[in-house]
Amino acid sequence: MLIPVILSGGAGTRLWPVSREAHPKPFMRIAGGKCLLTQTYERALAVSDQTAPLIVTNKNYYFLSHDELANQDVQARYLLEPTGRNTAPAIAVAALWAMEQKKDACLLVMPADHLIKDTPTFYAAVREAEMLARDGQLVLFGVRPTGPETGFGYIEMGEPMAPFANLVRRFVEKPDAATAASYLAQGNYVWNSGMFCFAARTIIEAFDRYVPELMNAAREVWEKCSGEGNRFNLPESFSELENISIDYAVMEKAENISVIPGNFDWSDIGAWSAVADACPADGMGNTTSGNTIVIDSRNTHIENSDRLVAAIGVDNLLIIDTPDALLVADKSKSQEVKQVVTRLKASQHAAHKEHRTVVRPWGTYTVLEQGLGFKIKRITVKPGASLSLQMHHHRSEHWVVTSGTAEITNGDEIMTLRANQSTYIPAGCKHRLSNLGDTELCMIEVQCGHYLGEDDIVRFEDVYGRV
Amino acid sequence: MLIPVILSGGAGTRLWPVSREAHPKPFMRIAGGKCLLTQTYERALAVSDQTAPLIVTNKNYYFLSHDELANQDVQARYLLEPTGRNTAPAIAVAALWAMEQKKDACLLVMPADHLIKDTPTFYAAVREAEMLARDGQLVLFGVRPTGPETGFGYIEMGEPMAPFANLVRRFVEKPDAATAASYLAQGNYVWNSGMFCFAARTIIEAFDRYVPELMNAAREVWEKCSGEGNRFNLPESFSELENISIDYAVMEKAENISVIPGNFDWSDIGAWSAVADACPADGMGNTTSGNTIVIDSRNTHIENSDRLVAAIGVDNLLIIDTPDALLVADKSKSQEVKQVVTRLKASQHAAHKEHRTVVRPWGTYTVLEQGLGFKIKRITVKPGASLSLQMHHHRSEHWVVTSGTAEITNGDEIMTLRANQSTYIPAGCKHRLSNLGDTELCMIEVQCGHYLGEDDIVRFEDVYGRV
Repeated sequence: MLIPVILSGGAGTRLWPVSREAHPKPFMRIAGGKCLLTQTYERALAVSDQTAPLIVTNKNYYFLSHDELANQDVQARYLLEPTGRNTAPAIAVAALWAMEQKKDACLLVMPADHLIKDTPTFYAAVREAEMLARDGQLVLFGVRPTGPETGFGYIEMGEPMAPFANLVRRFVEKPDAATAASYLAQGNYVWNSGMFCFAARTIIEAFDRYVPELMNAAREVWEKCSGEGNRFNLPESFSELENISIDYAVMEKAENISVIPGNFDWSDIGAWSAVADACPADGMGNTTSGNTIVIDSRNTHIENSDRLVAAIGVDNLLIIDTPDALLVADKSKSQEVKQVVTRLKASQHAAHKEHRTVVRPWGTYTVLEQGLGFKIKRITVKPGASLSLQMHHHRSEHWVVTSGTAEITNGDEIMTLRANQSTYIPAGCKHRLSNLGDTELCMIEVQCGHYLGEDDIVRFEDVYGRV
Repeated sequence: MLIPVILSGGAGTRLWPVSREAHPKPFMRIAGGKCLLTQTYERALAVSDQTAPLIVTNKNYYFLSHDELANQDVQARYLLEPTGRNTAPAIAVAALWAMEQKKDACLLVMPADHLIKDTPTFYAAVREAEMLARDGQLVLFGVRPTGPETGFGYIEMGEPMAPFANLVRRFVEKPDAATAASYLAQGNYVWNSGMFCFAARTIIEAFDRYVPELMNAAREVWEKCSGEGNRFNLPESFSELENISIDYAVMEKAENISVIPGNFDWSDIGAWSAVADACPADGMGNTTSGNTIVIDSRNTHIENSDRLVAAIGVDNLLIIDTPDALLVADKSKSQEVKQVVTRLKASQHAAHKEHRTVVRPWGTYTVLEQGLGFKIKRITVKPGASLSLQMHHHRSEHWVVTSGTAEITNGDEIMTLRANQSTYIPAGCKHRLSNLGDTELCMIEVQCGHYLGEDDIVRFEDVYGRV
């Protein structure tokens, strides 16, 4: 039994302004396809003979992940972290969970934010890895370098230990350009992909041997884990586990490790230049979609939504346009995007954290405009979903339904509104919005008041446990 | 009596996306200052001893111009064209108008979309020009070149004919770079600024001599001109006058012409690169305003409104961000912006014509969002202003007042709404919105219906004559 473990963390700050804290890299769609999490999930199902994957992620991403994967034939299981703690604690707890499923379970650990185009070759490598894992090996997936890449860690391979795998001589950090070129020339270096295969029992033994304190603490955490259905909530004490990667904690010390030098087309989409590389280019090397006019330009990547983007006479540029923030950068400076996010965080600018459209368990809201004494939102509610029963001290709300059917509690009254019907919720009045229909409900809300902050909300009842 | 004549035409398509057909170049604000029209108007007042200028412009720009100049001490007079017809017809009719004001009037002709920073030197040049104009000269304002500019026409100067003016040897078209450099080296070439000074009588005589058909046709047009107060409406027959510039029609043929080689700091703001040149730069040559994060970049000009713009590692770039369209261009390709507008026109894309905020005689409306079966507008109404009494066949409207006081006719009812009050206008119902208060009225309108085009409007009464 091969159980896929999908590690879905990592903010992807280099992919701002599309990747933000509330909507990070695993949820990005590259070249208009499915989001990276969904693509990883589908690879996981395919290679594990439809075994339900375990997704280890922050509890804040549960609803978002669940929505993205809602249409999958096999439902995911979730191990929800109160705080992200790097790969070693996540894998330690995942291994304990897997042991409870099946004593001899093998784990396939996959980060949620990688892109693999050549899946058959990847699947073959996984089957090879599983064989070694059954023999007690900790198996690393390497990727044969296609260029002198400086953005990855490398693994120097030793002697072959199977027709398709090698011993590991050493791990090396991200090299400089000259070193990367020499690695490429030598031929016995591979990129460290961050994917692994091992028996749950084997990795637990390794943890016990090399980081026994971490492993014991992980066991205590696991004891207190509360599960319901497919959703396991790690307790707050998880946040106290050591923030350490599986490479440092185990791989760089273990002796029963081996590496499969993969030949599949792999990218960790580490920066916008990698996104551009993953998109189909026109004859001038431009990668665009949506509403663009491109004149006399080369090697330029444009992402936009509604807004028209015109580019003239530009070369090697990234133009990433979102409703509230625009990035224009030379492709060679992809790594520096992180600096922008750091500055935004320091100045507490909302654009580091949330998009203009905010995703909630019940649907979404989008702030269309905020002005003197008013704020306008478009609200969408999923079929069957319901906002909390709530009240605002400082704002009144005018609601106009534009599509779908709303059941609205407005003080003592319960009413049903359809498209082109409206109601008024005065400040201080308890109210609730539900979608009882089987199509999405869309509603425009005009808030009026002197204070319009999101924190002016008193919740009385909530189906998502937010009271 | 020196009467300033401000020619306010010209789309400024090279300054898209800020300059658009409905809001062209004269209404642009450079470096956050007053708009170009207002700056020109204030120069005109200063140099003419507060004589009310005559603005020759398209009738569609009357309300916009009037609003921009509403706070001036001296109110403008308007000669409104049904269609733009180049400078010769406009000046011919303006001269006829001026003769009726005063037989010996002198005209100072100024395009509305130039920027002059060194006004004292300009004013001195105008006083010199007026002296020559009184002697029957057609006076051109040249500008001493400060570089080998290829974007302007040049005038080759002949012998001095006054201490401050020269004879004109010839006009030359926009030169190539080498020719422009040789003009600069020779020292007897000046840029043709497009500003003139002459007696109304002198220019009419010149028109009669060189383009008698045009002048006679202009007289017929002027006969039919209907005036009311400060506003003169040229008849439709104006559109049939020959589309010809004053340079071709008169200046290149006349013998009584002279040129003043101005030393003032002048720009015709012909393209975005000129806008950038007119803005104060930081130590790296960047010209930005608003909400920007600029890292490792040089000589880059950024214009934005609300949206955050981050630029990393870019050089010599223009980033012009508006609510519905973004331009990113190399500064050296400023001229090619015109191509974008040509393409947008060909595809009937709204962004060549209107901004997201549309200016009307009574105020503005801004489309905040349009979706399935709905459209949301923010509407502002000026104090004392009133929309037409109107009706829509296909859409209903939900109105929420967010500030100010609205008097609303809704079918047979007349009501007063204040902030946080709302009403519903069903399809087929006659309605009207007025602002009876002395502060601006702001209102959110949610339209619902299957057809939401702006052409679904029946107007019954309108104070702006649009029935």
